[in-house]
Amino acid sequence: MTAIAVIPGDGIGTEVVAQARKVLDVALPGYTATEYDLGARRYHATGEILPESVVTELDGHDAILLGAIGDPSVPPGVLERGLLLKLRFDFDQYVNLRPSRLWPGTVSPLADVKPGEIDLVVVREGTEGLYAGAGGTLHEGSSAEIATEESLNTRYGTERVIRDAFERARRRDRKHVTCVHKTNVLTHAGGLWRRTFADVSADYPDVATDYQHVDAAAMFLVTRPQAYDVIVTDNLFGDILTDIAAAVTGGIGLAASGNVNPDRTHPSMFEPVHGSAPDIAGKGVADPVAAIMSAGLLLEHLGHGEAATAVTRAVAADLAERTPGERLGTDAIGDRVTARVAEILG
Amino acid sequence: MTAIAVIPGDGIGTEVVAQARKVLDVALPGYTATEYDLGARRYHATGEILPESVVTELDGHDAILLGAIGDPSVPPGVLERGLLLKLRFDFDQYVNLRPSRLWPGTVSPLADVKPGEIDLVVVREGTEGLYAGAGGTLHEGSSAEIATEESLNTRYGTERVIRDAFERARRRDRKHVTCVHKTNVLTHAGGLWRRTFADVSADYPDVATDYQHVDAAAMFLVTRPQAYDVIVTDNLFGDILTDIAAAVTGGIGLAASGNVNPDRTHPSMFEPVHGSAPDIAGKGVADPVAAIMSAGLLLEHLGHGEAATAVTRAVAADLAERTPGERLGTDAIGDRVTARVAEILG
Ligand SMILES: CC(C)[C@H](C(=O)O)[C@@H](O)C(=O)O
Ligand SMILES: CC(C)[C@H](C(=O)O)[C@@H](O)C(=O)O
Repeated sequence: MTAIAVIPGDGIGTEVVAQARKVLDVALPGYTATEYDLGARRYHATGEILPESVVTELDGHDAILLGAIGDPSVPPGVLERGLLLKLRFDFDQYVNLRPSRLWPGTVSPLADVKPGEIDLVVVREGTEGLYAGAGGTLHEGSSAEIATEESLNTRYGTERVIRDAFERARRRDRKHVTCVHKTNVLTHAGGLWRRTFADVSADYPDVATDYQHVDAAAMFLVTRPQAYDVIVTDNLFGDILTDIAAAVTGGIGLAASGNVNPDRTHPSMFEPVHGSAPDIAGKGVADPVAAIMSAGLLLEHLGHGEAATAVTRAVAADLAERTPGERLGTDAIGDRVTARVAEILG
Repeated sequence: MTAIAVIPGDGIGTEVVAQARKVLDVALPGYTATEYDLGARRYHATGEILPESVVTELDGHDAILLGAIGDPSVPPGVLERGLLLKLRFDFDQYVNLRPSRLWPGTVSPLADVKPGEIDLVVVREGTEGLYAGAGGTLHEGSSAEIATEESLNTRYGTERVIRDAFERARRRDRKHVTCVHKTNVLTHAGGLWRRTFADVSADYPDVATDYQHVDAAAMFLVTRPQAYDVIVTDNLFGDILTDIAAAVTGGIGLAASGNVNPDRTHPSMFEPVHGSAPDIAGKGVADPVAAIMSAGLLLEHLGHGEAATAVTRAVAADLAERTPGERLGTDAIGDRVTARVAEILG
């Protein structure tokens, strides 16, 4: 029996996760869900961020479904580093998978792209780079203050994520991987990425490749996002590029992600790219599509390909039949998509 | 008499700089231009990148006009670090100034923005952060390889660029500064930026402020670029965000920049944001507008406000009268804009 750990988190996190669970109820019959109360609320109430005992419990599950973590009342970094990034690192979720598609029925801010034309996936490294947490501050608050951040990169970490990107590209129609870095300035890390990319690509003669600097890629994601198939990139660059990719495909409200441990040594974690959105929390207006699609990625990861496809198709159908400007409630969308998944799975 | 050092550089750099010089000929009568042959061509011919004697000579000028540096035949980083970044650092050009406006006659890839609606300037820090060149590689080429990049940030460097951004905001209509960083992950450097931003803003009660994470800013530059007035940010984030800003305002072919030393202890350097574009070099089809606008920023910096305004107006008028799809040659545009500047300056 599949055991899912659920971390609803803060703000709209709880609202959208509830919808994703409805979908799982019909797509993954008989799974067990264990809720973990983590995030700003718990932090304020108990001072706890992520007790080690909870890490151990989470580790016993097949996968984790997360809503959103964070609130302006908590100093920046506390929950991000102490909870979200800690889980990504502790559970060795080195593939941060972020697909972006422009679905029929959704509106891109770009004038010249039509639904169906954008279909890319960013394979963002999840356990290295500037996210390693190396750095420090001296003379804080004085005019002599200095602060450093160190990007740590290994051949080991670079190679495994690049290999994953090639594997995914091989399974896609266009079979193309774009490596994105900033080799002309970050010559050390960039050199490592570039060499590793070249080495790994030799094992995939059927996959076409190119390389772009991150600034150029940020631009091309706006001017010709249709050109991308798979993008593989470093942790921070992936953070930025996936928000652009989300923006051009109808917004962060639709963007799903998986923090995947492909070796399955620990559970993978699935979460919408959006945050807790305190401004709209509690109003029942958050679009649960990103959370539902994240549940779809979870199903795919656990080997339930048919159920995953049903979720994708149901969401696509739901988006396609929305009328422009229409504002549906979180619950209503969740119910509609759930019904459709049930229908598709027969 | 004003002494300008001119570095045409590689590829289309030489072509567009020639047009910017025509404009300067009428906008800054009597200036002297000294050309410096630097870039890929010289590197291949002599092995030299930027001899110290040339740095000293350049330092004797009032300003530097640069075309574009680089060619795929040179390993990544060699010319960028050895020439472009060396000048930015040696000449303490700590304000990397990058205005973006959507001019009438230009086409944004965004469906819902109209010419005139985007008018923002990014004040990118130019002498710190990940561009400092700190980092290294161990066990290169082996499976044990590690590579690091270190972001170095000082209160001194952060404060002066933030102050510059507030000064510029104060002179603009909307008087708004957005600080962009990634304080929730880069807690050390982000903390320094955030504290410094708060401290400096206290000296500018007439300027409104907000803060955004870099991923959110990258998204909002696509979904609502109209909202920005002045953005102040770190070196690498500025590199990425200005390419997005260029993309939504008609492309990098129109984006001007100044590497400014506001204290005037060394010359400032003005360059188009685009690169040497080897694919279109030598064909006479590169749009010289970015180089010409960069010359406009140079004029402004040297205190020739009227001439600078004339250049901006001439370029705006030129863009406004282009017919969509029309492909004008580099020379033709240069001549047209030059004639118009002459006319405006009467
Ligand atoms: C909340 C933050 C730590 C996180 C990140 O930077 O990875 C978020 O932006 C994301 O993309 O998942
Ligand atoms: C060429 C490169 C070193 C440079 C940078 O990264 O600053 C360029 O991208 C720019 O934006 O001027």
